[in-house]
Amino acid sequence: MKTIKLTLAYLGEKYNGWQIQPEHPNLSTIQGELQKGLKIITGEEVQTLGAGRTDTGVNALGQVAVFRTSSSIPSDRYPEALKGILPEDIVVYKGETVEDDFHPIKDAKGKWYRYHIYIAEFPHIFFNKMSIHIRKELDCAKMAEAASLFKGEHDFRSFCVVKTAKKNSIRDIKECKISRHKNFIFLDIYGNGFLHNMVRIMAGTLIDVGSGKLVPEDITRLIEAQDRNLAGFTAPAKGLCLLKVDYELKENCLCKAEYLDMSPLFY
Amino acid sequence: MKTIKLTLAYLGEKYNGWQIQPEHPNLSTIQGELQKGLKIITGEEVQTLGAGRTDTGVNALGQVAVFRTSSSIPSDRYPEALKGILPEDIVVYKGETVEDDFHPIKDAKGKWYRYHIYIAEFPHIFFNKMSIHIRKELDCAKMAEAASLFKGEHDFRSFCVVKTAKKNSIRDIKECKISRHKNFIFLDIYGNGFLHNMVRIMAGTLIDVGSGKLVPEDITRLIEAQDRNLAGFTAPAKGLCLLKVDYELKENCLCKAEYLDMSPLFY
Repeated sequence: MKTIKLTLAYLGEKYNGWQIQPEHPNLSTIQGELQKGLKIITGEEVQTLGAGRTDTGVNALGQVAVFRTSSSIPSDRYPEALKGILPEDIVVYKGETVEDDFHPIKDAKGKWYRYHIYIAEFPHIFFNKMSIHIRKELDCAKMAEAASLFKGEHDFRSFCVVKTAKKNSIRDIKECKISRHKNFIFLDIYGNGFLHNMVRIMAGTLIDVGSGKLVPEDITRLIEAQDRNLAGFTAPAKGLCLLKVDYELKENCLCKAEYLDMSPLFY
Repeated sequence: MKTIKLTLAYLGEKYNGWQIQPEHPNLSTIQGELQKGLKIITGEEVQTLGAGRTDTGVNALGQVAVFRTSSSIPSDRYPEALKGILPEDIVVYKGETVEDDFHPIKDAKGKWYRYHIYIAEFPHIFFNKMSIHIRKELDCAKMAEAASLFKGEHDFRSFCVVKTAKKNSIRDIKECKISRHKNFIFLDIYGNGFLHNMVRIMAGTLIDVGSGKLVPEDITRLIEAQDRNLAGFTAPAKGLCLLKVDYELKENCLCKAEYLDMSPLFY
């Protein structure tokens, strides 16, 4: 038996999120598609464990999935073997053998999420699956100022789905920044862990700052209030992308992700 | 009655090309979707005429469609009115009133097509609908040299679908160039008219040059041969995009297209 770590990208649009839902066996999930593909290759009913349970519609360029297998297939052959078996909106691009005690969630030192906002009079057909379209110009300087207030260790109870709020809702946000690239606004967030919908509520709240509904200083007040009702809307899933999961602590957390390096000028 | 000119973008993936096929009324086409939308807005069974009959799977960022209507809706309101009625992969972004004798095909002075090639070990999920993925590096310098040999007035019989070859297969290619942007190779072609599959066969032939199957000088030989069997393969539809239709002669034909200007660094 050996333990294999796969790195993969996917468009969340057509799936009911990452995680297999045993109570709804007919729902299509990314984990389900991956395990079906791995069964064809290994002949085994492997159980994968993902680094992040991305929700319905959320995209990933750097999701990590780990499984144990007695197959003799070299780990670096999995990407090639899975190509042609997986649907074209799921791409495994890296396979490695890791220690048997490697845990994709517990061993993660940081996760990098990016939220994509596209500003223009009309949506762009090429970017419609990975960004949300907003018609009205947003004030990026104010959004950047607000974003920086999320940095540090805070109780993020105001920024998560109420019913899923855990006892411990303190999280450490290492980086939270806004950047503008022509008609795109990127929100990049790096942290050691995230609550349910946390990035999407942060994105929605920052959009409210950009549109003038809130002022940057409101962020501190909203965090302190510990009341989900006061924070902004939950920004749509399709704008969110899990860019990278780090298993070593990085000096510069927003270093380039592998799959981004294959991107054109867009990144 | 007035004559309205619409400019629109679409992803060709889900449609059987631009043109309504009266003999196959159940096939979904972009023109069909547009006319269904216009019927809802105007109450009329309008007949649109497109500037280019893009094939199944071909994308457009600057298609032009013209129709006559007795509706009093101001022409610049059509984009907004059609939003929410059309499927999200068809976006009308400009509406203008034109002279009644305006003809979207006959009055066109030039068309700009771009073919998108994405070079990387694995396909990129964000660019999969608008580019073809090629694994092996291509020689861009050789492709650029070959592309320039297409320029000028030539008989393009070698570069069109045999059965559709018209009596007159002479076309004037004003510009044909290759550019590289990180993992993307763009082939930009500007001309006064194109034969069926002409750009896709030119793209396939240039890919053959990039991979070393052909040398740049072969282009001249292939044009002179007037034999489709000698030219390269027909590159897949999804890499092709109709960027712009010009109704005034441009000094610099590859000037920026309106919908491209709304794009991020990608363009």
